[in-house]
Amino acid sequence: MRSLLIVAHGSRRQASNEEVRYLTKIISAVNSGFDDVDCAFLELANPTIPEGLENSIKRGAQEIVVMPYFLAAGRHVAEDIPDEIAPVQDRHRGVNINVVPHLGASTMMTTAILELASKTSTAL
Amino acid sequence: MRSLLIVAHGSRRQASNEEVRYLTKIISAVNSGFDDVDCAFLELANPTIPEGLENSIKRGAQEIVVMPYFLAAGRHVAEDIPDEIAPVQDRHRGVNINVVPHLGASTMMTTAILELASKTSTAL
Repeated sequence: MRSLLIVAHGSRRQASNEEVRYLTKIISAVNSGFDDVDCAFLELANPTIPEGLENSIKRGAQEIVVMPYFLAAGRHVAEDIPDEIAPVQDRHRGVNINVVPHLGASTMMTTAILELASKTSTAL
Repeated sequence: MRSLLIVAHGSRRQASNEEVRYLTKIISAVNSGFDDVDCAFLELANPTIPEGLENSIKRGAQEIVVMPYFLAAGRHVAEDIPDEIAPVQDRHRGVNINVVPHLGASTMMTTAILELASKTSTAL
């Protein structure tokens, strides 16, 4: 079984966490190529990254793709997310956990910006 | 003249700010429908939002579309960015400054996530 875990920063503002959970539901509903799609948060919200990974493994994941939902490749992406994953990988040697590039690295950011910029905008 | 100003959070880590500047250059180079494309930062990097707007106006902008390069519609998007824009708008009543939805609101986030998730991933 192949799972996708979308990892966001997490916020004190519940509505921001709900935006991520909603996006996760949308991706679950489309033909994503994954048997299981879930989200987890680096801090300030649940599930944490270890909890998210353990939940996927409990549901039967043999391969987990971790997708950092971050715009910049800063310390969170380069160090904190791998540090959270490492102990889970140590506990489950038979599960293949891989981290793909962060969202900001997507070539689609250009298109997304221009699509939004063409929308009816809000005058101040 | 119609300008696009991409507004990012800004980081102590210069490489993160450079990611935004690089993306801005890419958008300047494509057929974006804007005569002028620039970026500005809410904090920790230059130009600031007022500086970015004033620079666009000096270059001749009569309309400026402000695009919040943020994943979540938190306080920064809802309050801080409009607060930074307001005094500039007051000083230049003839310039049309509009804010479009933040990046996380783009329907392309789903596609971007799935495209990245299908990339060759990095084993830990």
